[in-house]
Amino acid sequence: MKAELLSVGTELLLGEIVDTNSAYLARSLQELGIDLYWMSTVGDNMGRLLEVLQRAWSRSDLIICTGGVGPTDDDMTREGIANLFGEEMAVQPELAEHLRAFFRRRGYEMPARNIKQATLIPSARALANPIGTAPGWWAERDGRVVIAMPGVPSEMTRMWENEALPELRRRQGAAVILTKTLKVVGVGESAAEDMIRELVASPNPTVATYAKSDGVHIRIGAKSNDPDEAQQMVCEMEAKVRAILGVHIYGCDNETLEAVVGAMLRERGLSLATMESCTGGELANLITDVPGSSDYFLGGFVAYSPEMKVSLGVDPEAIARHGVVSAETAIAMAKAARQRTGADAALSTTGVAGREPVDGVAGGTMFLGLDLQGKTKALQQVATVARPVFKARASAYALNLLRRSLLE
Amino acid sequence: MKAELLSVGTELLLGEIVDTNSAYLARSLQELGIDLYWMSTVGDNMGRLLEVLQRAWSRSDLIICTGGVGPTDDDMTREGIANLFGEEMAVQPELAEHLRAFFRRRGYEMPARNIKQATLIPSARALANPIGTAPGWWAERDGRVVIAMPGVPSEMTRMWENEALPELRRRQGAAVILTKTLKVVGVGESAAEDMIRELVASPNPTVATYAKSDGVHIRIGAKSNDPDEAQQMVCEMEAKVRAILGVHIYGCDNETLEAVVGAMLRERGLSLATMESCTGGELANLITDVPGSSDYFLGGFVAYSPEMKVSLGVDPEAIARHGVVSAETAIAMAKAARQRTGADAALSTTGVAGREPVDGVAGGTMFLGLDLQGKTKALQQVATVARPVFKARASAYALNLLRRSLLE
Repeated sequence: MKAELLSVGTELLLGEIVDTNSAYLARSLQELGIDLYWMSTVGDNMGRLLEVLQRAWSRSDLIICTGGVGPTDDDMTREGIANLFGEEMAVQPELAEHLRAFFRRRGYEMPARNIKQATLIPSARALANPIGTAPGWWAERDGRVVIAMPGVPSEMTRMWENEALPELRRRQGAAVILTKTLKVVGVGESAAEDMIRELVASPNPTVATYAKSDGVHIRIGAKSNDPDEAQQMVCEMEAKVRAILGVHIYGCDNETLEAVVGAMLRERGLSLATMESCTGGELANLITDVPGSSDYFLGGFVAYSPEMKVSLGVDPEAIARHGVVSAETAIAMAKAARQRTGADAALSTTGVAGREPVDGVAGGTMFLGLDLQGKTKALQQVATVARPVFKARASAYALNLLRRSLLE
Repeated sequence: MKAELLSVGTELLLGEIVDTNSAYLARSLQELGIDLYWMSTVGDNMGRLLEVLQRAWSRSDLIICTGGVGPTDDDMTREGIANLFGEEMAVQPELAEHLRAFFRRRGYEMPARNIKQATLIPSARALANPIGTAPGWWAERDGRVVIAMPGVPSEMTRMWENEALPELRRRQGAAVILTKTLKVVGVGESAAEDMIRELVASPNPTVATYAKSDGVHIRIGAKSNDPDEAQQMVCEMEAKVRAILGVHIYGCDNETLEAVVGAMLRERGLSLATMESCTGGELANLITDVPGSSDYFLGGFVAYSPEMKVSLGVDPEAIARHGVVSAETAIAMAKAARQRTGADAALSTTGVAGREPVDGVAGGTMFLGLDLQGKTKALQQVATVARPVFKARASAYALNLLRRSLLE
């Protein structure tokens, strides 16, 4: 099956938004085993839209459109498809009622212009959109399919995953591509790739590494006509990768490091506190991004100045002797955070976020400190990167320091 | 002049990377006053690449290609353009020497395959790439231009700005589009648009509003044959927008709210502290994203539990009487943060980040507190949005509360 993507919207041609939908759909098609040869973007212009639709219809089996399904005159993807099929759009009473109910729940009456979102052509059925006003279209003729979805990413991804993907998966039947992503922290991308070099050469299942802000992602993909066999292939490859990278792997697929560490704390009944210098609040921010984190996270301190550190109970001796950016100060900060909050565990960060040296400490240097029920530890790392990346890296290293200690 | 963008690379069709180059170039073309009607993506396949190039050549005056100029066999943008022009590629000695020098500086010998990056066709000249191995091409015939640039964004943007844009600007000559973005916080997008409704209808200069995570952006664009006139038009429109939105405008173009507030504090010689509950560190994190923030930011507390708040000096009476999520507790938190750190100003946040009510307080409710040299204030806001967006909004509202108080 050959697929083609079509993004519709003048705002894309003005550069007002970056098209993230196409990459999302491209990846999904790849996992389905559907070949994608073309992606195009057109503005809100019927002549050009129809031209692109006709060309796509002449060379592809599956055309996926995003955008242009809103209620205004500028939104013309439905009209374009109706034109392509040579069919008339007609209001569907049940879709219209659904739309009116959507507005009623929000305390408004439906604006008259929205009625066009309740139309279909004879060759199309609606794809439900419970979180917006624009239902999608699945239009089909002679075994060729045109899918139209909203351009808003949250509405599009929901519609794709719940409405379109299951049907495509059913039709693809035979060839499935299963993927699993293992997430690694504490090892660089090239080091990780070196360690699993032999596996990366495998044609099926495939193994690929990607550098991300939260570490390295290792993506395993297996293609087979038999879903069970694909599953088996992924499992066997995962075991090989785990045998090599072991404890460096903190999670898989959608798991985040902060959620994994949070679950470990919850399981062990331990509480956590933080004292941050160079991460400036990013570490606490990550920890509290996890729903339910208030169960184990007692709180944190952002202690930028040495005076603030001392006022929070950081040993002034450690600072005076070893400097603010040192293993000793990192440990003294973690100790003070634990003492102040009564937490079982405390993490700390201190470092030089800029590229220039400060007080004889090289730019990019960071120390992560841990006090886990009285057992203390410090870790030194270097990253000469932009300030926000530095903060993200330091936070990930700190969380990983705790994770590794909890595993011991 | 009609332009067309072409992104080349199979990795785009596999969804491995998001194409940010197209939006960047689209915006730049818009500012040049060049119409962009089509954007396409093709993989590393000569047949399809040539087909797309030929179609573009038949309908556009300017074709801008990104990607496919690397040294491997998969990189075929140069070959495609040579094919389109029906010309032979030939190695240019001075480009080859430049390449060899590039590798020499890094202590390597140039791999043999890289020589194809030193080629040109008779109709093309090279666009310099001082930070990579791939020079670009400017190929021209009959007044129509094909530009080829690397896909790596840092190399592409540098080449575009230094090599291609000045020449296009010179040729465009007459029509320039000047833009200025005014940034607003504390007013919703539709409210802002309602307030400046008459201005938004203006055809030239244009005025458009965009909802962003840090507030609303109002973009003014003026098109004129005379740069001074365009400047004048932007200035006059800016004055009109400012007359209506006044103090709601916190900055323009690349200014951030945290940097604007930071500059105000520095100017007034005031220091700042924070005590966060519902933002969980995001507020401190934003403040410390600003280089030099240690000059005025003393530090912050992330006090998730009521016990932690009380241990930091928050008045337990305020919590007991009015609840943790209340104006009174927000003020008590700001007071405690000031007291503990000796800062001139302190900001606080307390709220319900989830959608469900907590202790009788509706989901999405937030209170921002301020203690500015003893003068206290609290602000209530509601936002039922995803957790990270909630944290970002609450942080922006808190920073704006301080900004507005400093202006009084």
